This record gives sequence, structure tokens and C-alpha cells, in this order.
Amino acid sequence: MKSQEELLEIVNAELSKQDFNIDPKELFEPITYTLSLGGKRIRPVLTLMSCEMFGGSIDKALYPALGLEIFHNFTLIHDDILDNAPLRRGKETVYKKWNSNIAILSGDTMFALAYTYFFKTRQEAVIPILNVFNKTVLDVCRGQQYDMNFETQDNIGLSDYIEMIRLKTAVLLGACVQIGAVIAKANEDAIGKAYTFAEKLGIAFQLKDDLLDLFGDQDLFGKKTGGDILSYKKTYLLLKALALCNNDEKKELHNIFYNSEIEPEEKIAAVKSIYEALNVQLHTEKEIEKYYHEAVSSLDSIAIPASQKEVALSFASKLMKRFF
Amino acid sequence: MKSQEELLEIVNAELSKQDFNIDPKELFEPITYTLSLGGKRIRPVLTLMSCEMFGGSIDKALYPALGLEIFHNFTLIHDDILDNAPLRRGKETVYKKWNSNIAILSGDTMFALAYTYFFKTRQEAVIPILNVFNKTVLDVCRGQQYDMNFETQDNIGLSDYIEMIRLKTAVLLGACVQIGAVIAKANEDAIGKAYTFAEKLGIAFQLKDDLLDLFGDQDLFGKKTGGDILSYKKTYLLLKALALCNNDEKKELHNIFYNSEIEPEEKIAAVKSIYEALNVQLHTEKEIEKYYHEAVSSLDSIAIPASQKEVALSFASKLMKRFF
Repeated sequence: MKSQEELLEIVNAELSKQDFNIDPKELFEPITYTLSLGGKRIRPVLTLMSCEMFGGSIDKALYPALGLEIFHNFTLIHDDILDNAPLRRGKETVYKKWNSNIAILSGDTMFALAYTYFFKTRQEAVIPILNVFNKTVLDVCRGQQYDMNFETQDNIGLSDYIEMIRLKTAVLLGACVQIGAVIAKANEDAIGKAYTFAEKLGIAFQLKDDLLDLFGDQDLFGKKTGGDILSYKKTYLLLKALALCNNDEKKELHNIFYNSEIEPEEKIAAVKSIYEALNVQLHTEKEIEKYYHEAVSSLDSIAIPASQKEVALSFASKLMKRFF
Repeated sequence: MKSQEELLEIVNAELSKQDFNIDPKELFEPITYTLSLGGKRIRPVLTLMSCEMFGGSIDKALYPALGLEIFHNFTLIHDDILDNAPLRRGKETVYKKWNSNIAILSGDTMFALAYTYFFKTRQEAVIPILNVFNKTVLDVCRGQQYDMNFETQDNIGLSDYIEMIRLKTAVLLGACVQIGAVIAKANEDAIGKAYTFAEKLGIAFQLKDDLLDLFGDQDLFGKKTGGDILSYKKTYLLLKALALCNNDEKKELHNIFYNSEIEPEEKIAAVKSIYEALNVQLHTEKEIEKYYHEAVSSLDSIAIPASQKEVALSFASKLMKRFF
């Protein structure tokens, strides 16, 4: 079985072979640009890994895996417009480098392109794959809309937040693993458990992101910590803090968090010190642990030899131990 | 066989039964709103008509037909952002009524929803349908990008323009007919000819739109004539005029067309009088005729009894005779 690194190489090699060079160039340049920005390629790697775990041939999963990566990159292009995000992986986002119209339309094109990749696999797997994918796309859109709604909503509960990140991030990881498993002809019980593994891992992954944004090592993380605070983002950290504190503390936190006149560094320090007093870091780590363990238990329960699960287990563990 | 009006009723009845009421409402309200604005439902009607023409059961084509209408409405939502269009069918466009972000995301959701409709038909037809649809979506995106490019390009030839409207409008009509025919198990030769019928009709339809914008009866057309001139749109009329006139006339037309200081009514009258001197209306009508005849010839050449083509022929004829 191939290691995560070998799978990543396969994905990148195949991706770089794809020719999106269709007229007019204004439509396809942003697609090539976006896909060349790199990234961890978590989604296609998960698809190949799952396919191999269940004894399938990764040749059959390669194109669907690329389709999932292309879809993911489409969501980034549109999300960056929605979030007014100027940078992605240290480079200008498509809507900044070109304009919103180009970003909307090249995103739509990428979405359509993604679909074309699901046909190059076992013939009988195509419709089951598309059924998984269609449901997932709708859930991802729903998650993104909840995220947008949260910007202007008060009283968001921790469970609302978990459901939002489940839809926005985790279900796609679940779908990647499910699609790999379907291609490998895994049985339904195993597919369900593999899905749960990736879905729970996805939630843990997103919570870790929230944590690293403030408590990560700035040099390793590669960007300034505290960005979520400065952009008023309602992360798990904030919602947990609000859930833990009394009314007076809530008011104080609220006043600092929404004050646009405090200096950035001072604001980050003030919020961080409230979080520290409330043990928010520890609480979040416990929550991450919880989802990570649910993920691993689900993987454990799949009735295949443990040796076949080693790559997936190591993948999950690395994702959790990351400092950036 | 059912008449165009009966098919329209079936489409509208089924569309009104669809429940898009999924959380969060911000995502689905714009979808229900857009689909309730009405319109001629040309695309789903074409799909049902084609299916019946080839002896298929329209029950099997109904959901794919709705998918095509939903896809078409998705393109309208995104196009209205790209074009800054405040009104659609006399009502506020989604991005105006809500905002761009909602329009981007509910559009994406609609695109994904459209795909789910292609699965409810004959099992063996699903993959062929999706192959047609995927190719079409990419072409529609390409056409939209060419249209955007033309805004800032000079020296667009008439053939460039025809190719743009073929991609942006005609290929989807072709796909609607093709999908209906595939569901009805028509043979390949017949499917190709039916596709050509709708594609050529689509080009004629778009040229007629250009013509009616300036030469239509204002009361029947339902909006002020000359809108394309005021929005600097490079229509077939303008490109034909530029192709017909000498260098001095070209300069004069250019100076009037791009002058933002002339009163609207005066500008429309001035451009119209140049078009009239050049016989642009007649030339355009001839071009429409040409594509209409290519469409009808292709329909004629399909080896099925003439009686089965009557509804399609009458549909094409009505589309051409319309004054609005």
C-alpha cells in the first residue's frame, strides 16, 4: 500500500498533466492558476487512500479524486469572493488578481469540470458516486450559507457551530472517503464507517484550525496569529468562551471583541487573556480529541485487517499533530 | 401528442410542486423566487416535445426537463450579477433583492440541484444525459465569457458573434432536445438532426431578440426599445452595420454609439437611422430566416412520420413570428 506522501505525488503528477487550456483563456487561466497554488490535497489523497484500503485499484479512483480536488478549489474561488479574502496560500485570490465576474464564471466552469471527472472510473460506480457527490455539494453550500448567516447572528450555540463546520468542511472529506470505497466495491457497512471516520476527522481538523489561528506557533503557522479575532470571526474558541463565562464577563468579552478602535495587537492579547482565564484552549483540545477518537473508533470498527488501515490511521494522526 | 401549451402546463404544474424548502432559508428563498418568476419555459418544453416526437413517455423526461429549467435559471442568477442587471421579467434580480453573495451561493446551489434531476429517468439514460449536459454547461460558460470579452474588444466579426450566441444560448436548446430524444431511445442519426434543429433555432431566436430590442413594437415587447444601444451592447445589428459601412460611416457610427452625452432618445434615433440607411433590419431578418430554414430542414430530414414533427414545427414557427 502506498504512503500518504506517495499518494500526494500521484495526485500532483496527474493534476499537472490536466490540460484546461480551452478558449477563451480568460475562463481557464484562473482555473490553472488556482490548481497550481498547491495545498495539502487532502481530499484526493483521502479518496485514493480509501480505495486502496478496501483493496481497490487507485487507477480507477484517480480521476474522481481529481474531480473532488477541482470541486474543492471551485468552492475556494467563490468563498474568497464571499469573504473578501485577498490572499490564498500566500498568493492573490482569483477575484483580486482578475475580478469578481471572472471569479464567478471561472468558478462555475470549474464546478462543471469537476463533474466530468466522475465518469472516468468503473462504469457501475458512476451513478453511486454522483449520488454521493450531489448530496455533498448541497450540504457544502448549506454550510457556507450558515457560515455567512453567523456573521450577523447572535446566540449561536456550540452545536450550531459544529453543524456548520460539519456541512462546510467535514461532509466533503466524508464523501472523498466514501467515493474511494465505492470504487473499491467495499460493502455498505464498511462504507458507512469509513465515511464517519473522515467526517469526524474533518470536524476535528476544522476545530484545530480555529485553535491554531490563535494558539499556533506564528512562524510554523506561516501567518500572524489572531487573524480570526481581527476579522470578527465567530470561531469555536469565541463560542466556547461565551458559553463558559457569566453575564458580566460576556459583556466584557463582547465589548473588546467588537471594538474596532483597539490596536490589533492589544485586542488579540486582551481576547487571548480572557480565553486563557477560561481555559478555552484546553476545552477546545478536549473537543478535538473527542472527534478524533470518534474518527479512529469508526476506522477501528471496519472489518478489514488492521494492516490495511495503517495509512489512514497515520494520516489522521498527522493531521491532528500538525502545528500549522 | 401534446401541444406546446399542454406541455407548458405540465412543466409549470410539476415545477410548482417542487419543494426547495431546505434550511437555511437564505439559500432556498432565492431559488423558489427565481423559479416563480415564470418565463416561457422554452427549455423544458423542448425536452418533453422531443421525447414525445420520438415516441417516448414524457413521464420519463419530466424530471430531466425540470433540471434543464433549473440550470437555465441558475445561469440567469449569475449572469444578472455579471451584467449588473437590476430587473428580470419585471421583478428585481436576486442580487438586487438580496445581495451578490446570496446570488452567488444560491446560484451554486441551484446548479447542484439541477444535477439531481437527471437521475429520475430511465436508468440507462442517466449517463448519456449527463455527458450531454456536462459538455453543454462548459459551452454555456464559454459563451458567457466571450460575451464579457466582447464588451471591451474591438473588431468582433459577425462569425465571432454567431459563435458566441451559439455557445451562450443555442447549445442549451440543442441539449434539451437531445436529452428528450435520448430518453425516448431515438437513434443516433435522429438525435443529431434533432440537436441541429434546436441549435439553429436557438441562433435564430437570439438574433430575433437583437432585432426586437430596437425594431420591436414597444407596447408588445413590454419594454422600451433601444435598450441594447443605451447599454453599449454589441449586438448583431451593430456588427452588421459596421460590416456594411465605409470608413467614414464607421467613424460616425462609433462616435454616436459611444457618446455618453447624447440624450437617450436622440441617440437611439440617430443609431436607428444609420441602421435604416444600411438596411440592417432586412439583413438581420435574412440571417434569421437562414438559421430558421436550417433548423426546419434538419427537422424535416429526421426519418419519422411528418405528423410526429408537427408540434416541433409549430413551436419553431411561433418562436420566429413572435413580436416580443
